[in-house]
Amino acid sequence: MKKAPYKIYLSEEEMPKYWLNIKAFMKEKPDQMLNPATLQPCTAEELEQLFCSELVKQEFNNTDKYIEIPKGILDFYKTYRPAPLIRAHRLEKMLNTPAEIYYKFEGTNTSGSHKLKSAAAQVFYAKEQGITSVTTETGAGQWGTALAMACAYYQIDLNVYMVKVSAEQKPYRKSVIETYGGRVIPSPSDTTEVGRKILAEHPDTGGSLGCAISEAIEAAIKKDNCRYVLGSVLDHVILHQSIIGEETRIACEKYGIKPDIIIGCVGGGSNFGGLIAPFVADKIEGKSDIRIIGVEPASCPSLTRGKYAYDFGDTGKTTPLLRMYTLGSGYIPSPNHAGGLRFHGMSPIVSKLYHDGYIEARAVEQTKVFEAATAFARSEGTLPAPESAHAILGAIEEAVKCRETGEKKTIIFGLTGTGFFDMTAYMSYNSGTMVDHIPTDEELEKGFTELPNVPGK
Amino acid sequence: MKKAPYKIYLSEEEMPKYWLNIKAFMKEKPDQMLNPATLQPCTAEELEQLFCSELVKQEFNNTDKYIEIPKGILDFYKTYRPAPLIRAHRLEKMLNTPAEIYYKFEGTNTSGSHKLKSAAAQVFYAKEQGITSVTTETGAGQWGTALAMACAYYQIDLNVYMVKVSAEQKPYRKSVIETYGGRVIPSPSDTTEVGRKILAEHPDTGGSLGCAISEAIEAAIKKDNCRYVLGSVLDHVILHQSIIGEETRIACEKYGIKPDIIIGCVGGGSNFGGLIAPFVADKIEGKSDIRIIGVEPASCPSLTRGKYAYDFGDTGKTTPLLRMYTLGSGYIPSPNHAGGLRFHGMSPIVSKLYHDGYIEARAVEQTKVFEAATAFARSEGTLPAPESAHAILGAIEEAVKCRETGEKKTIIFGLTGTGFFDMTAYMSYNSGTMVDHIPTDEELEKGFTELPNVPGK
Repeated sequence: MKKAPYKIYLSEEEMPKYWLNIKAFMKEKPDQMLNPATLQPCTAEELEQLFCSELVKQEFNNTDKYIEIPKGILDFYKTYRPAPLIRAHRLEKMLNTPAEIYYKFEGTNTSGSHKLKSAAAQVFYAKEQGITSVTTETGAGQWGTALAMACAYYQIDLNVYMVKVSAEQKPYRKSVIETYGGRVIPSPSDTTEVGRKILAEHPDTGGSLGCAISEAIEAAIKKDNCRYVLGSVLDHVILHQSIIGEETRIACEKYGIKPDIIIGCVGGGSNFGGLIAPFVADKIEGKSDIRIIGVEPASCPSLTRGKYAYDFGDTGKTTPLLRMYTLGSGYIPSPNHAGGLRFHGMSPIVSKLYHDGYIEARAVEQTKVFEAATAFARSEGTLPAPESAHAILGAIEEAVKCRETGEKKTIIFGLTGTGFFDMTAYMSYNSGTMVDHIPTDEELEKGFTELPNVPGK
Repeated sequence: MKKAPYKIYLSEEEMPKYWLNIKAFMKEKPDQMLNPATLQPCTAEELEQLFCSELVKQEFNNTDKYIEIPKGILDFYKTYRPAPLIRAHRLEKMLNTPAEIYYKFEGTNTSGSHKLKSAAAQVFYAKEQGITSVTTETGAGQWGTALAMACAYYQIDLNVYMVKVSAEQKPYRKSVIETYGGRVIPSPSDTTEVGRKILAEHPDTGGSLGCAISEAIEAAIKKDNCRYVLGSVLDHVILHQSIIGEETRIACEKYGIKPDIIIGCVGGGSNFGGLIAPFVADKIEGKSDIRIIGVEPASCPSLTRGKYAYDFGDTGKTTPLLRMYTLGSGYIPSPNHAGGLRFHGMSPIVSKLYHDGYIEARAVEQTKVFEAATAFARSEGTLPAPESAHAILGAIEEAVKCRETGEKKTIIFGLTGTGFFDMTAYMSYNSGTMVDHIPTDEELEKGFTELPNVPGK
């Protein structure tokens, strides 16, 4: 077997031509999405008012293990992929660990994160269906940026409802989206009924992700030839992200790398679900006993301290009900700089895998996360996004255990993106003013009281 | 011959193991560096007070065509290279041109630019020589960032004198440098005599690159085991950057790509000199008649409107004299968002090549540059640095000519870096408030009056 180079880039021919559908491998499937009004399973017809038909098909597909990627999407992937699998030699040396550490780096594109894979797929299908514009919401801005790039590529209009405080605090993110030709509307806005209602009641509000989702949904439904797109949580998004895992698996097989532990950060679950896809599929089929660890912020601990229950995906309680680990749709996490992980719930697929014991979860404090981020930047060169740094911390903790036990384990973690637009958070860490906040049990209980009552679940 | 993939990544084995020394190919060498006090050629001994011995050797090396890259530097290069050569399929399509356009992308590292190649080399040699710290200045911040990464890798102390207004306007850049462990000192500062003098005279000054250079030099000279490092202009920097060109040449030969035109942006000349190295060497040797074009800002037109004369490298008039195209060391270019191109002079190597007719130059206005940058971002995905966008505009202009003539030329341009930290400039362009400024002949004449008098030149 050939010795692995420092950075493993697959060739275009080696890049996967299919997505891996975890659900088709799962013995028990995640519970069905429910219509909150009827508590009956959502129908394809209902969902197609909101999402493109092909995405709805994918959302309901529990049987096909592999789904071919259309050429029009592969062509886009070729413009910025493959993403490398990199050996963290310097980090290993710094930690003085016998462990081998690798990271799959998804930040080698201007959107700066892994989000582009699903953005491209969703916009491609919209275009194919004759849709002329899409709407979405963005908080941290990585999803909005990725979507703006994809919309520029496929030439489709984009309206991004950006949480007003984020638009104000992150004018650069907003400006990137605009440079790609997307329109950014600070939310709440006067462009939707729900926005106008909130503005009338709370004229000075800085907005929330929940409100931005509600506005983006309303705008999509009311406009002709328009659909709503979402960057995480849903099954079709996890499906598109499975390329992260498939590229990792192919690179490992090519160079004889045998991972013992896979680690990813978890917010809505899209990067994590994608990274682990082929590895958890093997585990379900009894072909491996690999350890799979999701790392989440202690300030928003949906897996480690949430309830496995039906809940809304948004604060405004307008979405279908999803069975997932949740802190309650009314739970407002304290400020955490990893905006992409500040979500009260979790992907139903990831939730079910966790519930069934295939994966582990761990909650970490943000000052430790930034300590890990800084160590990684100084040793490996790349300045990580705060979200990604949760996975770095997880990997460092496992590597340090190896140092103590002398075990030579192989650890792979997902580096989802770069931190170029998160320097305010780094400044807070560098100046020593960053604080941790771990919710009390009482605070969490308050979130749980609002969970919808779904008999039997 | 194999068909080229969308992005050409060389393998580790294919990466160049040597630098190409343009000077050894030149029939007439650039004029020698002079001591401004004596107007005699600088000696190695004089320069070694400021720079590491090995770098001084390289600075004076006019004979070795290829110089082996030490393993300690190659190891660092492997952590973030190779940098891809990418076919701009989408841009070609947008322009409806028969031309084939490729770009060598040097922004695939967190420092975000090509600067890392020389930063690594300079810090490596410092470390080898037992130097424990280095000083430098930074304006736009790309050099400071690259140097901070290299210093973190080789574990050496770094003090960056950052133009005070830049440090204030670009707190994020400052913060990146600090995250890598570098110390940022807004200049003018009270840490040097020259800084204290300027502060006493102009307590409210926002500083200048010239002043920052003077402070960094003084700090290096006065401290034990410390040296000054510079990110552009000098021959040894161009030498280190020759990898850009060598990787490009190797990729072209591998896939049978025959460039007709090479285009780069020019500020101090380091990226441009590196990109063109093997191509201009062939041209000098009569093996090709390739066109080579440097694109500079109309607001700081050293090649197109400067004088070929001896001049200081800094506004403070403390450096050796270099014979180069210059607008005069006192020339203050009007605000241009491409900070990396706001230098009154030009690399002596690039200047001599231009003087001898091997390369062409073109000056462009910044609103057109941002128009090109936006078109490139939307078609190719990558958000370019404003500096790099000068080369994009040059390439677009040539591709449009091909559309008009029907010629199927092959154009390669250098994409030096990403624009993540330049969003203020994009915001100015997006909002329509960006203006162009082209200096009048009278303004330029003022700069020329201060040129030092070197008999016969």
